[in-house]
Amino acid sequence: MTERPSTNRLSEDELHDIDAYWRAANYLTIGQIYLLDNPLLREPLRLEHVKPRLLGHWGTSPGLSFIYAHLNRAIRLRDANAIYICGPGHGGPAMVANTYLEGTYSEINPDVALDEAGMRKLFRQFSFPGGIPSHAAPDVPGSIHEGGELGYALSHAYGAAFDNPDLIVACVVGDGEAETGPLATSWHSNKFLSPTHDGAVLPILHLNGYKIANPTILARIPEDELRALFVGYGYEPLFVEGDDPASMHERMAVVLDDALDHIKVIQDTARAGGTTARYRPKWPMIVLRTPKGWTGPKEVDGLKTEGFWRAHQVPLSGLAENPAHLKMLEEWLRSYRPEELFDAEGAPVPAIRATAPQGDRRMSANPHANGGLLRRSLELPGMDRHAVAVERPGSVKAEATRVMGGFLRDVMSLNADAGNFRIVGPDETASNRLQDVFEVTERAWMEEILPEDVHLGREGRVLEILSEHTCQGWLEGYLLTGRHGFFSCYEAFTHIVDSMFNQHAKWLDACRELPWRRPIASLNYLLSSHVWQQEHNGFSHQDPGFIDVALNKKADVVRVYLPADANTLLCVTDHVLQTWNRINVIVAGKANSWQWLSIDEAKVHCKAGIGIWDWASTDHGAEPDVVMACAGDVPTLETLAAVQILKRHIPELKIRLVNIVDLMTLQPKEHHPHGLSDREFDALFTRDKPVIFAYHGYPWTIHRLTYRRTNHDNIHVRGYNEEGTTTTPFDMTVLNGLDRYHLVLSVLDRIPEPAGAHVRLKQAMEGKLIEHRAYIREHGQDMPEILGWKWEP
Amino acid sequence: MTERPSTNRLSEDELHDIDAYWRAANYLTIGQIYLLDNPLLREPLRLEHVKPRLLGHWGTSPGLSFIYAHLNRAIRLRDANAIYICGPGHGGPAMVANTYLEGTYSEINPDVALDEAGMRKLFRQFSFPGGIPSHAAPDVPGSIHEGGELGYALSHAYGAAFDNPDLIVACVVGDGEAETGPLATSWHSNKFLSPTHDGAVLPILHLNGYKIANPTILARIPEDELRALFVGYGYEPLFVEGDDPASMHERMAVVLDDALDHIKVIQDTARAGGTTARYRPKWPMIVLRTPKGWTGPKEVDGLKTEGFWRAHQVPLSGLAENPAHLKMLEEWLRSYRPEELFDAEGAPVPAIRATAPQGDRRMSANPHANGGLLRRSLELPGMDRHAVAVERPGSVKAEATRVMGGFLRDVMSLNADAGNFRIVGPDETASNRLQDVFEVTERAWMEEILPEDVHLGREGRVLEILSEHTCQGWLEGYLLTGRHGFFSCYEAFTHIVDSMFNQHAKWLDACRELPWRRPIASLNYLLSSHVWQQEHNGFSHQDPGFIDVALNKKADVVRVYLPADANTLLCVTDHVLQTWNRINVIVAGKANSWQWLSIDEAKVHCKAGIGIWDWASTDHGAEPDVVMACAGDVPTLETLAAVQILKRHIPELKIRLVNIVDLMTLQPKEHHPHGLSDREFDALFTRDKPVIFAYHGYPWTIHRLTYRRTNHDNIHVRGYNEEGTTTTPFDMTVLNGLDRYHLVLSVLDRIPEPAGAHVRLKQAMEGKLIEHRAYIREHGQDMPEILGWKWEP
Repeated sequence: MTERPSTNRLSEDELHDIDAYWRAANYLTIGQIYLLDNPLLREPLRLEHVKPRLLGHWGTSPGLSFIYAHLNRAIRLRDANAIYICGPGHGGPAMVANTYLEGTYSEINPDVALDEAGMRKLFRQFSFPGGIPSHAAPDVPGSIHEGGELGYALSHAYGAAFDNPDLIVACVVGDGEAETGPLATSWHSNKFLSPTHDGAVLPILHLNGYKIANPTILARIPEDELRALFVGYGYEPLFVEGDDPASMHERMAVVLDDALDHIKVIQDTARAGGTTARYRPKWPMIVLRTPKGWTGPKEVDGLKTEGFWRAHQVPLSGLAENPAHLKMLEEWLRSYRPEELFDAEGAPVPAIRATAPQGDRRMSANPHANGGLLRRSLELPGMDRHAVAVERPGSVKAEATRVMGGFLRDVMSLNADAGNFRIVGPDETASNRLQDVFEVTERAWMEEILPEDVHLGREGRVLEILSEHTCQGWLEGYLLTGRHGFFSCYEAFTHIVDSMFNQHAKWLDACRELPWRRPIASLNYLLSSHVWQQEHNGFSHQDPGFIDVALNKKADVVRVYLPADANTLLCVTDHVLQTWNRINVIVAGKANSWQWLSIDEAKVHCKAGIGIWDWASTDHGAEPDVVMACAGDVPTLETLAAVQILKRHIPELKIRLVNIVDLMTLQPKEHHPHGLSDREFDALFTRDKPVIFAYHGYPWTIHRLTYRRTNHDNIHVRGYNEEGTTTTPFDMTVLNGLDRYHLVLSVLDRIPEPAGAHVRLKQAMEGKLIEHRAYIREHGQDMPEILGWKWEP
Repeated sequence: MTERPSTNRLSEDELHDIDAYWRAANYLTIGQIYLLDNPLLREPLRLEHVKPRLLGHWGTSPGLSFIYAHLNRAIRLRDANAIYICGPGHGGPAMVANTYLEGTYSEINPDVALDEAGMRKLFRQFSFPGGIPSHAAPDVPGSIHEGGELGYALSHAYGAAFDNPDLIVACVVGDGEAETGPLATSWHSNKFLSPTHDGAVLPILHLNGYKIANPTILARIPEDELRALFVGYGYEPLFVEGDDPASMHERMAVVLDDALDHIKVIQDTARAGGTTARYRPKWPMIVLRTPKGWTGPKEVDGLKTEGFWRAHQVPLSGLAENPAHLKMLEEWLRSYRPEELFDAEGAPVPAIRATAPQGDRRMSANPHANGGLLRRSLELPGMDRHAVAVERPGSVKAEATRVMGGFLRDVMSLNADAGNFRIVGPDETASNRLQDVFEVTERAWMEEILPEDVHLGREGRVLEILSEHTCQGWLEGYLLTGRHGFFSCYEAFTHIVDSMFNQHAKWLDACRELPWRRPIASLNYLLSSHVWQQEHNGFSHQDPGFIDVALNKKADVVRVYLPADANTLLCVTDHVLQTWNRINVIVAGKANSWQWLSIDEAKVHCKAGIGIWDWASTDHGAEPDVVMACAGDVPTLETLAAVQILKRHIPELKIRLVNIVDLMTLQPKEHHPHGLSDREFDALFTRDKPVIFAYHGYPWTIHRLTYRRTNHDNIHVRGYNEEGTTTTPFDMTVLNGLDRYHLVLSVLDRIPEPAGAHVRLKQAMEGKLIEHRAYIREHGQDMPEILGWKWEP
């Protein structure tokens, strides 16, 4: 480790070099936004050197590069292992500029070399058709955070720091982003970070004062409130404020050193003495207040620009119409003295290159920011010992997610040494019946632990906070840095993270084009406490629409599983933990329910994703009169109950039961890699027989997936029609017409009527529905024949 | 106004009565959770008196009733105008209990009278099939907030307080809810609340320490941090902490009085002296720390229950299996001494009834909490003077949302005196081109205002915070208390509030069953900066899926509009501002674009919601060869450009152009009140001709809406296929196959090929696509023929 200077003040040489680096980064940022050609300004700037469409964000960029430069120095001096999360991700050109100065960008993109031609390419490609997007997207080395949609920088940072004891995650939070809800609560992540076995997060709140057209809240509140806010969040805030570059460099170097020293003391103390502290440490954070668009044009057309929101995007525009603006642009670019920064070939001068760390210590080359490089496959326990013994279908009951919890417990144990598996959730791990994991670990908790507390601990590997946003952000950060995890959530409230899901799906999609980005573990959701099994809760907790949000994303990225019982859930769980670069959505209930498949049958069924359940069918391999399809645990139960009624009353009816685990099988093969071919689909669903499809979610979802299929006109779907309240699970199915009686009626409506038996059965079913309604209003629970129902083979 | 006592200490009588009221509320809460019969415990409790399914949340309830009781006293003493927002909305039985004690519940539900029979009904109906849900749902009088999904209590409270200068909105925030992102940032709402023209919000953070199975963060952090946090959020925190009822009553009375006095001083000062203060006032807030399940069983089966998370839901269960639990339940109920609380008939004794305010001063009867009672229709300016003069289609360009902005400016002016119209948005009002509203009002801002600031003011009626959650919460609170508003948002980021949208839709849906709930103004969204028109931004900003989330909700509640130009946008805007109990989603771009319809044509077109554009069609009323359908501004432009190419090259082709403004027209009439009948649909789309449908969003959305239509098999949809990056709007259409060239190719693929003209046109189109790609990579902008395209009649 390099010897640290006796004082953490910058020497004159250091000040010169760090400022030169910063000027170079700023120059390269402006060049990307503006220039097509003449990158080194070796000739006077002319209009044809400038891009016709000026796109990009200058305002935040100089602050981002200022931080980058100082982090580089600190990394070099300490041989630190650090990554940079850029909350204001629209400062993309600044992040690209820094990775270019570090050499990483050219290593990945050899045509964007460290010379004049490379610089021309660097400039031209930015926000240019066929080039790179304007945000710090996946194509920026060192980035694990896009920041197009704001709010998740800090939860990503903590996610990256968990179980990486040597890592320092510097996280720049923009003062615009700081107003979002997800960001506002993610400061509390410090309550879950162990000084012993986790790394450190160094938040840097960048107050540049303005959003697109407004001041920001945190930049305008009185400074005593600002300080109190971060003390209240449990940090020790350190302030760096000003606009004079030289004194700001000096102050930033001192404060950054102090912060890193403080982090080291916290960690060393905890690691030496164990985790006996009553309260969590007060980690440092930095408040950096600089002008927006710092070092840019002070005024444009008589209007304040530097230090104001007009600097947010492109401070100078309309260059074709306004030659004075072109001239101002040239002066602005020349103010960084590019001739001092780049050599004759156009490469950064040695003094600038030397301010950056070397090799993997460069934040843009740190393998943690390309997590797939570090990813190790999970050790998996094998399903058989967790399987529910199912001698014959419907002979035994189990709670599916509890069985899954046993499996996850063993995953947790087997990978304890690797320390690369976490479960996150909003206070619902036990509520979703995954409590067996607490046999081998606890909930992470750095606040006081009282004698009566249960399963709370400093070294816990389950992360629970009542913020779905924070759960999702932590898990994304954890996965993006090469680890594995599971998010269990109430189905309805998964919608809270719709937008985060979208952004992660887009990130994964974009990564598929970047071979240097190594695959990361999939993001796995368990949606439990689902629409059909709300016990304490009502209408507000009943919403199966997350599946639809998921289905809108690219087929290569998304999978949706609806296992019907515990053993199928086990198989799906085992599978998704072995996949990468995907988002797997599993919907499974926690109620104690009948089990259908043995583990061996479940393996076969889940591998296919869809199949005929012969034991429940009466077509004996012949062409059926009706297909009864089901996807989801409750729809499967009701379908089997309906089959049983039909078998008893119309024994001659040839019924085929098709169960779907993998929703994607329904889509055409051309739309999704798991999709059945038309021939396969027709073989299951026939070309012309009625299909009564009982589905877990909104019925139109099935139509959307199957509208191209031969027999689509005969597919009649029953699902959730947005009818709900606090009632029994069975009554919920009745309210939405998904219950056994409605399913039987639906079949009767669509098969030829050979005899009076049908009329009588129809009347019986209608009578049952009336009887049910009366009974449940009288007794507050379901009829004995519902509660005591059994499958009769 | 009642004379206030000289001291705000409780007298002995007051203490007795307020405690009796509280015991009664707690008794009624437990009764709802447990009892089917024997409501007054006039005989020993037996198992058959107890519900078979025990559902509900006890943990938060005693605290909620404690606050309710003290607010009642304060209202009575001050003749205050106050409502109660119950963040822990799962404390539904407590809220119901209080409204029952106030008499309001029985006024609305005469069968639940203030006697023994009524109490039996009250108990039985709770969480009972056919009864009422377990949350503070719309059926609870005085509620404007369900709280099933947590996080929005405080933004709802501020929304209710805006423009209600005399209103006090007491808002209980649970310490679980306080961990959510939306709640964590909504504390900053005080930066937007005017002490002059808005009312007051009194946040009461209820620290009961535990969530479902975990401690809460705010209850476990050191008290100095807790205090600092709220000082940092800009409040003056007042603490009430303990578990002894008598001393807690005394302390709460004093603190609540202090808080309300402080609020009055702030308001009186501001209203007397104008709004000259440099900084916003430091409004009071209360931190109430009490045990979870306060006054409930201390221990159950040897495990700590009161003051722990085991008290969260039903502390005593398994009564059938465990007679000791039944006995504990009886003792617990009797501990409130019901014989002192209810008279012989079962009505609350007079001393208890007298502790509540009278008439509309009861929080459960306050008309602000049934906003439809107060709703006044907006004055609307008339569309004609805002209309773009369109002499013939495609003869003039305009920015649609800018035109809308002019209209909204006049809405703002015309209703300035009524003070009942607000625009909210995440810093995007100007970015979405609605800046004309700033001619007549400003952005609300209570922090310091600097000389260079633009359109910031203490009395501004536009609310901008970089939190979509807070925007949505404010607007919901504003609408639910009887006012009107508009939310403008980037299309992609509207997904951030998916879940809030769902909950509001569910609320509106539930209200339709409650005739006493009067209709409120619709929630209106403008989704702009949409998927096809991202200038500075890339893939992360491209997502049209909010429409799909909206379509999953009940047809009676949701409308989706895709106006193709400025005048159709005007008509839609004018319409939605006159609707109630709906959520209207409008998607419209801000780019300077060709205009198609005069205002008179737009009125006719929007009234129908869908129609043939004869001027763009070549079928002259005959059966067409092909239907070209379009929905959305960019798809309409590309469709018209495709029609123009086809007209030129295949003049004999009979094309019918159908434009859709109201997406719901596509659904079957039975599914949506705006849906076309099959006959109407067939008349537009034919029964058998190819339909090339250019759609704004995901293509499968159109299939989902039309799969039952006669001609569905011939509908070929082009839309957003999740292909995006930072590029030109036209290139975006090419990437997704929605551009004019692909549309022409799509037509050519589906019409009979009479001659070589088709082959040549096909080759020409393929050539154009290659040419486009090369041109845009070279020049960074679109080909001149795209930029300069004009409609040729």
